[in-house]
Amino acid sequence: MSHLDDILKSRRDTRHFTTDSVPDEVIEKALQAGHWAPSVGLTDATRYYIIKSEEVKKAVKDLFLDYNKKAEELTDNPEQKERYKSLKLEAIEEAPIGLIIAYDRSVLNQFTIGTVGSNEAVKFSSVCAAQNIWLSLTEQGYGMGWVSILNYYQFKKILDLPENIEPLGYFCIGKPATNYDNQPMLQQLHWKQKSEAPNCTEIKNISENYIPDFPLKSQNEEITNNDFITLLQEKIDSKTKPIGALGTLETLAFQIATVLQSLNPKITNPNIVVFAADHGIANHGVSAYPQDVTRQMVGNFLEGGAAINVFCKQNNIELSIVDAGVNYDFPTNAKLINAKIAKGTQSFLHVSAMSQTELQLCFEKGKSIVNDIAQTGCNCIGFGEMGIGNTSTASVLMSLLTGLPIEECVGKGTGVENSKLLEKQNLLKKAIENYSGPAELKEQLAYFGGFEIIQMASGMLTAFENKMIILVDGFICSVAFLIASKINPDIIKNAIFSHCSAEQAHQKLLDFLDAKPILNLDLRLGEGTGCAIAFPILKSAEVFLNEMASFESAGVSRK
Amino acid sequence: MSHLDDILKSRRDTRHFTTDSVPDEVIEKALQAGHWAPSVGLTDATRYYIIKSEEVKKAVKDLFLDYNKKAEELTDNPEQKERYKSLKLEAIEEAPIGLIIAYDRSVLNQFTIGTVGSNEAVKFSSVCAAQNIWLSLTEQGYGMGWVSILNYYQFKKILDLPENIEPLGYFCIGKPATNYDNQPMLQQLHWKQKSEAPNCTEIKNISENYIPDFPLKSQNEEITNNDFITLLQEKIDSKTKPIGALGTLETLAFQIATVLQSLNPKITNPNIVVFAADHGIANHGVSAYPQDVTRQMVGNFLEGGAAINVFCKQNNIELSIVDAGVNYDFPTNAKLINAKIAKGTQSFLHVSAMSQTELQLCFEKGKSIVNDIAQTGCNCIGFGEMGIGNTSTASVLMSLLTGLPIEECVGKGTGVENSKLLEKQNLLKKAIENYSGPAELKEQLAYFGGFEIIQMASGMLTAFENKMIILVDGFICSVAFLIASKINPDIIKNAIFSHCSAEQAHQKLLDFLDAKPILNLDLRLGEGTGCAIAFPILKSAEVFLNEMASFESAGVSRK
Repeated sequence: MSHLDDILKSRRDTRHFTTDSVPDEVIEKALQAGHWAPSVGLTDATRYYIIKSEEVKKAVKDLFLDYNKKAEELTDNPEQKERYKSLKLEAIEEAPIGLIIAYDRSVLNQFTIGTVGSNEAVKFSSVCAAQNIWLSLTEQGYGMGWVSILNYYQFKKILDLPENIEPLGYFCIGKPATNYDNQPMLQQLHWKQKSEAPNCTEIKNISENYIPDFPLKSQNEEITNNDFITLLQEKIDSKTKPIGALGTLETLAFQIATVLQSLNPKITNPNIVVFAADHGIANHGVSAYPQDVTRQMVGNFLEGGAAINVFCKQNNIELSIVDAGVNYDFPTNAKLINAKIAKGTQSFLHVSAMSQTELQLCFEKGKSIVNDIAQTGCNCIGFGEMGIGNTSTASVLMSLLTGLPIEECVGKGTGVENSKLLEKQNLLKKAIENYSGPAELKEQLAYFGGFEIIQMASGMLTAFENKMIILVDGFICSVAFLIASKINPDIIKNAIFSHCSAEQAHQKLLDFLDAKPILNLDLRLGEGTGCAIAFPILKSAEVFLNEMASFESAGVSRK
Repeated sequence: MSHLDDILKSRRDTRHFTTDSVPDEVIEKALQAGHWAPSVGLTDATRYYIIKSEEVKKAVKDLFLDYNKKAEELTDNPEQKERYKSLKLEAIEEAPIGLIIAYDRSVLNQFTIGTVGSNEAVKFSSVCAAQNIWLSLTEQGYGMGWVSILNYYQFKKILDLPENIEPLGYFCIGKPATNYDNQPMLQQLHWKQKSEAPNCTEIKNISENYIPDFPLKSQNEEITNNDFITLLQEKIDSKTKPIGALGTLETLAFQIATVLQSLNPKITNPNIVVFAADHGIANHGVSAYPQDVTRQMVGNFLEGGAAINVFCKQNNIELSIVDAGVNYDFPTNAKLINAKIAKGTQSFLHVSAMSQTELQLCFEKGKSIVNDIAQTGCNCIGFGEMGIGNTSTASVLMSLLTGLPIEECVGKGTGVENSKLLEKQNLLKKAIENYSGPAELKEQLAYFGGFEIIQMASGMLTAFENKMIILVDGFICSVAFLIASKINPDIIKNAIFSHCSAEQAHQKLLDFLDAKPILNLDLRLGEGTGCAIAFPILKSAEVFLNEMASFESAGVSRK
C-alpha cells in the first residue's frame, strides 16, 4: 500500500474533535492542496471562507438543528428514528475551525470551457478541492467533517454570502478524537456496511436505435354517436333554468361530456404541467429580464412561491414542473421532472435553435410526461410555460404557421418597453427573412425551436390520444397548440382556451384558431396561470351537469 | 513539500496520451482509491463503467463532437472561437481506457443521512471518488482527463444506463504524453492564468440585516390612507411576476385589501343571499314562465337542486334564501329567511307596485338580513334574485335612473322570444309615460317596485357600512346596485361586478356605472350564479396577494 493509499484509506468524515487548536500553517497548506484541484475551463471558481467566531458557529449550529429535526421526521420507522437521533452528525461548535467551500457561479456568465453539457463541472471542481483539502488535513494529522444538513438559503443569508456564491456545505476542522476503528463512523455504529469493493461494470457495446422517429399524427377513435349527443343535449336542457341561460357553461359542459364520453363526466386528478426552458434568442435583448430568471422561477415553482403554485393550491390542481431545457443544472429534486434536452436552445439569429435529434427528443419527452400524468388518473390537463425570451420564439412560429406578418404576432412579452418593441419586431423579421431551410414543419420547428414549446405541443397531442381535456393557457401555450393542431387538426375538440392574454398577438391567434377563451382578465404571466384560474369555471360546468335538478325532479314548470 | 503535495500538484487533466496500454491492476488500484472516498450516509452510490470497445468510444466521441460544436457557437468573439476550436479537449478514441464515474440516485428512495438540505451530497461523494482515482492514477504514473462536454441524455441512451444512474462525465485514462510543463494545459496555452493562491475570506460575524420579509402588522392598527396604499401597491409589485402581469387580479387584490383594510386580507365566511319575490307585471305576458315558477324555484333552492346551490357548494359559499315577497305561503322553514312584504307587488301598469310603508319595510328588512350575515363573520357578500317578471321592473328603474331610453334597457329576460320583445318594450314605455308621480327616487322606487330589488339595494348599503366586499350578479342585481349608488355613491368602492350578462341592457348599465365585470360567459340566469361562478377569481386575487413569494424572498431578479 502506497503512502497515498494510506492517506486515502485513513481519511475520515470526522465528528469528534479534541480541543487542540489548528495552526494557521495547517489550514494554509490544506487550502493550497485545494487550490491544486482541477478547475474546469480554468475558471478558478472555488472560494473559501474561514470561521473562528463562536457567534457564527452558534448560528450555523442552530440552522443544523433546525434541518436535522426535519431529517428525523423523514423516517416513519420509530427504531430508525431513535437510532438516527443518537448519531452525532456534526461538530460545528466544538471544532476549532469552520470552513466553507463554495463556488462562484458567476463565472458561468462568461464563455466557459467544459460547461456546455452541464455547468455542474464548476461545482465538481470545488468538490475535488474539498477532497484534496481532506487528504491534506489527514496527512497533517488533522480531520474534517462535512456538514450538508443545512437550509442553504438561510445559510447564505446569515453569512451574508453573495447570491452568486454557492456553498457545498460547512466543514468542521480540528484534531480527531478518534479514528472510528479505521472505518466510517456509520459503519462502526452498524448503521450500514460499506461494500467491500467498488462496483464496476464493463460496457462492451452501444445501444442501437435509441430514438424512435415520432409519427406526426396522433390517434383518437371517435365514438361520439348521434344518440349520445341527443341524450346529452336533453340532459342539459332539462336542468331547472331557461334553455341556454348558463351560456358558455353549457357549451363547456357539452364539450367536457363529449371528450370524457360520459353523460355524467367527472374531472379527475386535474394537473397543470409547466414546461420551462431557455432560449438562445434571450441573449439578444428581446426580454426585459436576464436569462437567469428562468432558473430562478423554476426554483420559485419548486419552493411553492410562484403564482401558479398558489392558484393550483387554491383550486386543488396537481402541479408538475418540467425542466425541458433550462440553462442550469438543478440539484436532483423529486419535484422536478427532468426532460432537459440541452441547456437552452441556440439563437435562431445565427444557427438552428435545435437539431432534428433534439426536436425528436422534445416530442418523445413531451409524450412520455403526459402519458405518465394520464397514468395517475388525470383526465384534464393544463399546459403552462416559463422561459425568458419565449415570446420571441412563439411570435416567429406563429407568423410562419399562420402566414400572418410578424408585426401582428409580436407583443411586449412580460416586460419589454414600447420603445424596444419595434427593435424586437425587426430582429424577428430579419430572422424569418434569413431562414433558408425548407418550409416544412419539422425544419421550421427545429430552426426556431423552443424546447418547452415543442414539448407542450407533443404533450397536447398525447393528451388528445389519452382522451383528456386540454386546457390551453396564454399566447405561448396557444402557439404550442397551433403546432399540435397542424399535426392533428382534430385536437381542437379537446381544447379549452382558458383566457385571452393581454399580449396583443394572442387575440389574433385565438381568432385564427376560431377559439373562444373563457376569461378576459388581461393576464400576461404564463406559467399556466390562466388554466389554473379558469379551472373552477370548468368545474362549474361539470357540477351543473351532474348535480342540478331537472324540471321534472324539482317539480318546476318548464314553461 | 510532502509526497501527497507532489501528487496533488502534478495531477493533470490529461488530453494527450501515449499508445501504452493500462494494466488492469492500475485500474483496480485506482478504483479502490475511489472506493475509499467519502460516501454520504454511507450510501455507497458510486458506480463505475469501464470502456475498452472502439465502437463505444467512437459513439461517445460523436456525442462530444456534436456538443462541442454547440460550445463553439456560444462565443460571439471570432478570435476566441478560433482559439477554442484549436483546443484539444478530449482523448476519447486515443486513450486506451474509458471510465464512467456515476452515482445511483435511487439510493435517495430510502431514508438517507445527510441529504435533507440538498441531495447533491450523493453526487459530491462520487466527485470525491473521481478525485481519489485521479490522484491514485497520478501516483502510479498514469493520467486521466475528464470530458464533460456531452449531451447526458443521449450519453445514457447509447450506453443503455438505467434511468437512476447519473454519470459525472466520461474519463479518459492512459499514460500521459506530456506534463504540460507541470501546469494546467489551458494555462500552458495562455487561455487563462490560474490565480497564485486560494481565495479565502474569514467570516467574523453573522449578517445583522437578516430579517424575515413581511413583519406582521396588527390587524387593528389604523393606517393612514396614503401609507397603506403605497405599502399595498409595493406588496403587489414585489410579487414574482412582471408588474401588472396578473391584470384584473391585481386590481381585484388591491380593491379587496382596501375594502378589508389589510395588507393580508382574508375573505371569511362568504355568503350569497338570494332575494325572491313576485311582480304584478308578470301577469301581462312579459315572461315566458308563469308566476308560479318563482315559488317552485324557491322550493328548488331549499332542496339544493338549483344552479346557485351547486355553484355555492362547489366554491364553499354559504347560501341564504330570502322570501322578500313571493306569492305563496311557504311552510315555516329554517332555511328560508322570511322577509315577506306581501305576496307579490301590484302591477305598475295600473297602480303603484308598493306603498311608501312597504318601501320603507323593504329597506329595513334588507338591512337587518345583511347585518345578521355580517354577524356571522362574513366579509364578502354576493347578491342574487329570483322573481318572474323582474327584468321588466329592472328595465323601467334603469331607464328612470339613468335617463337612457327604455329601448336600451329592455332585454329578453330569461325567456321571451324575439317576437315578444317589441311588445314588452311598448308595454314598459307606456308604463313610464303613464307615471305621473314626482321624479323623486323614493316615489319612483315604490311605484315600479320589486320587493327583492329594493331589499337588495338596502342590503348592499348595509354591506358597505359593514366594510364588506359586495359581489354584484347580473342585470337585475346591477339595477339594485344602481339604486344603492344613487343613495350612497361611495358604495362603488366595495363593489365587484361578477359578470356581464347576455341580457343586452346589462352591458349598457355596466358602462353607465363605469364597471368592469370579471366574467363574460353569456350567463342570464340570475340567482346570484354569476357571483358564485366568479368567486374563485376573487379568491385567486386574495391568495396571490397573501401567498406568492416576493422577488426578495424567492431570490428572483426584478429586472
